[in-house]
Amino acid sequence: MKSDRSLDVVIVGLGRVGRALAKQIQKADSQLRIVGLADRGGLLYHERGLSASLVDEALSAKAEGSSIGICPSALPPIYRFSDLATSRTLFVDATAASGMAAGWCEVLASSGAAGVVLANKLPLCEAWSVSGPLFNHPRVRYEATVGAGLPILSTLRSLLATGDLVTRMRGALSGTLGYLVNQVSEGHAFSAALSDAIALGYAEPDPSADLGGRDVARKAVILSRAVGWPAELSDVERDGLVPDSDAYQGAPSADYSSADRKLKELFADADCDGIAIRYLAQITPERISVGLARIDLHDPFAALAGTENRIAIHTRRYPIHPLAIAGPGAGPETTAAGVLSDLIDLAEKSKLRGENPCPC
Amino acid sequence: MKSDRSLDVVIVGLGRVGRALAKQIQKADSQLRIVGLADRGGLLYHERGLSASLVDEALSAKAEGSSIGICPSALPPIYRFSDLATSRTLFVDATAASGMAAGWCEVLASSGAAGVVLANKLPLCEAWSVSGPLFNHPRVRYEATVGAGLPILSTLRSLLATGDLVTRMRGALSGTLGYLVNQVSEGHAFSAALSDAIALGYAEPDPSADLGGRDVARKAVILSRAVGWPAELSDVERDGLVPDSDAYQGAPSADYSSADRKLKELFADADCDGIAIRYLAQITPERISVGLARIDLHDPFAALAGTENRIAIHTRRYPIHPLAIAGPGAGPETTAAGVLSDLIDLAEKSKLRGENPCPC
Repeated sequence: MKSDRSLDVVIVGLGRVGRALAKQIQKADSQLRIVGLADRGGLLYHERGLSASLVDEALSAKAEGSSIGICPSALPPIYRFSDLATSRTLFVDATAASGMAAGWCEVLASSGAAGVVLANKLPLCEAWSVSGPLFNHPRVRYEATVGAGLPILSTLRSLLATGDLVTRMRGALSGTLGYLVNQVSEGHAFSAALSDAIALGYAEPDPSADLGGRDVARKAVILSRAVGWPAELSDVERDGLVPDSDAYQGAPSADYSSADRKLKELFADADCDGIAIRYLAQITPERISVGLARIDLHDPFAALAGTENRIAIHTRRYPIHPLAIAGPGAGPETTAAGVLSDLIDLAEKSKLRGENPCPC
Repeated sequence: MKSDRSLDVVIVGLGRVGRALAKQIQKADSQLRIVGLADRGGLLYHERGLSASLVDEALSAKAEGSSIGICPSALPPIYRFSDLATSRTLFVDATAASGMAAGWCEVLASSGAAGVVLANKLPLCEAWSVSGPLFNHPRVRYEATVGAGLPILSTLRSLLATGDLVTRMRGALSGTLGYLVNQVSEGHAFSAALSDAIALGYAEPDPSADLGGRDVARKAVILSRAVGWPAELSDVERDGLVPDSDAYQGAPSADYSSADRKLKELFADADCDGIAIRYLAQITPERISVGLARIDLHDPFAALAGTENRIAIHTRRYPIHPLAIAGPGAGPETTAAGVLSDLIDLAEKSKLRGENPCPC
C-alpha cells in the first residue's frame, strides 16, 4: 500500500550530505523510497526500491572512501539521468560537481520527472542562460544551498507568492568564515583559528573557496536569482577574508603570517572605534558585494556566535525592521534536512497529482 | 480557463485582516477567487466568484463600520459554513469570535472542504478535546496566529516532517508588549507609552488581553500544541505586564500610576545589574510560562526593537544555537500575507488533486 503511493528518490552524490539524507529518508516513515544511489564510479538502482541492506552497504563503502562501484550489484555509472526518470522520480544532486545544470534541465524537460532537488550550488551559478530554467521552476527546489536547513529560500518563495517585493538582503552565509571572524575578534591569530576550524570540521581541508569568498559569492548569486535579479557570478564584488594570493595556496601548509598581522590590525582598529566586523553578503537589484563589513555593535549581525548564519530580508512589507532568520547554517545533518524538506514538499504536490489514477 | 482551475475562498470576518486579505487576493493573479464574504450581519456569496465591484462595496461598508448586511445583494448571515463547502472551497476565519472550533471541524469532516485557514487564535485554544482535530490536520493552516507573516509555524511543520524533535521554544510574541517594554526600558512612563501605543495603532483601544498576557498565552498554547504537546490554556503560568487588577480596568481611563512606579523600579534595578528585561513566552513539554524575564544583554532577545517578534526554536538538530526567526510580527498587511501564504499552500495541493479529472 505504501509503495503504491510513494515517490521514488535517486540520490546522486554520496558525500556526507548524501549519506545523511539516505539515512533520514530510511528513518522517516514517509512517502519516499530510495530507488537509486549514484556516484562517479557506479549506480545502484532498482525500480521498486533499494533494500535497506543494499543502501547500508553503499553508505559503508562510501564512508570508507570507496565508490559505489565496488558493491557487487552496482551498475556502471550513468550520465543521462533522464534515462531513469518517470513521473514519480525525484532526483537529488548532492554532488559538488560542475556542469550539471544542463542535465537537470533536460531531466525536467524531456521526462517530466516529479522534481529535482539541489544541494549542489554549482548548477544554480552557471551563466544565467544555462541556470535560468532551474529558478522558479515549479518542480525544482534548492533550500539546502543557502543556510543548510534554515528556511531561507522557502521564505523568499512565500513572500513573492503573496505579492511582496524584496528590496535588499544582507546575510552572514558562511559558518566557516563566521567562526574565523569570531575567533579573530576575540584575539586569536587567524592561522591558529583556521587550524582549529579544520580540526573541528567547520572548514574544508582545502578552505580556499571559503577563505576567498567564492562560496559566499555563489550563495549570494543564488539568493539574488531566487528573487528575480538574474546576476552573474562575475558581477559579484568579492573580497576574500584573506587575499586570493594567500587563500589559494592551500592550508594548513600555507604561510598566513601576513594575513595574521593584517587581520589583527583590522580588528584592533574596529575595537577602538567601538564597532564589530562581520563577513557579509549584501544584495540589491543593482549590486552584490561580499566581504568584511564594519557594523554597529547593536546590529543583530554582531551577536552571531560560533558558526551561525543569519539573513535579513528587506521587503515592501518589511521596510525598516527586516524579516530575519538565523541559526547554525552548516553540517551534514541540517543540510540533509533541508533537502528532505524540499523532497517532502515536491512529493506532496506530485503524489496528489497522481493520487486518483484514471481507471479507463 | 483560470476560473476552471481556481480555488474558491470564503472569508469569514472582515476586520482589518480580512479586508487586507481580500485586497491581496484580488491583486495577486493567483489561483484563488473570492466566492464568499461573511460577517455577523450578512453573507455575500456567488458560487462562480464575487465581482470586484461587489467585493469593493463590502470592504467599503466594513471600513465605515457597517455590516455586510447593508449591501443590497447580501443574504442573511450563515451559521453552518459546511452548507457552502465543496471540495474546492477554502475557508478563512478572520474573526475574533470564540466557539468556532467545532464548526470548522464539522466543515472538514462532513464536506471535505479544500481547507480551513485560521487567523483567529481562539479555535486553536479551546479545550484540547475540541481543538485537537485542527492540529496536524493536512487541510488546516494557521500561520498568521503567531508572528503574523513570519514563517514560524511552517518552519515547525517542516522540522517535524523531516524527523527533527523540538525540545523547547522561547518567544517574544507580542508587538504591543515589546513596544511597551522597550519604551519603559528607555525611561518613559508606562502609562505614557501605553497612550502612545494606542495612538500609533500598536495596541488595541482595550489593551487588557495584551497587558494581562492572555494574548501571548494563547500563542504559546498554539506553539506548544503545534509541536505535539497538547497543553491547555489553564496550564499556562501567566504574569501580566501589569497586574490583572490594573490591566482589566480598560485603558486609557485606567489609573496606571501604581504600574508606572513598579515598572520604573523593576527596570532601574535591571539596569544596575547590567541585564535586560523582555516579555517572553517559554515553552517546554512540561511547562509554559509567560511574563517578564531578566535576560543577558548579549541575548539576541535583548536587541529587539520596536514591535518586533522573535522566536528561538531548540531542537535535536539545533541543540545549542537555536533556529531563530525575527521581524515585525503584527499589522494587517503582514498578517493577511500569512493567511494568503497558507491559502496558496493548500490551493497548490488541492488543485493538483483535481487537476486531471477522469473523463469517464
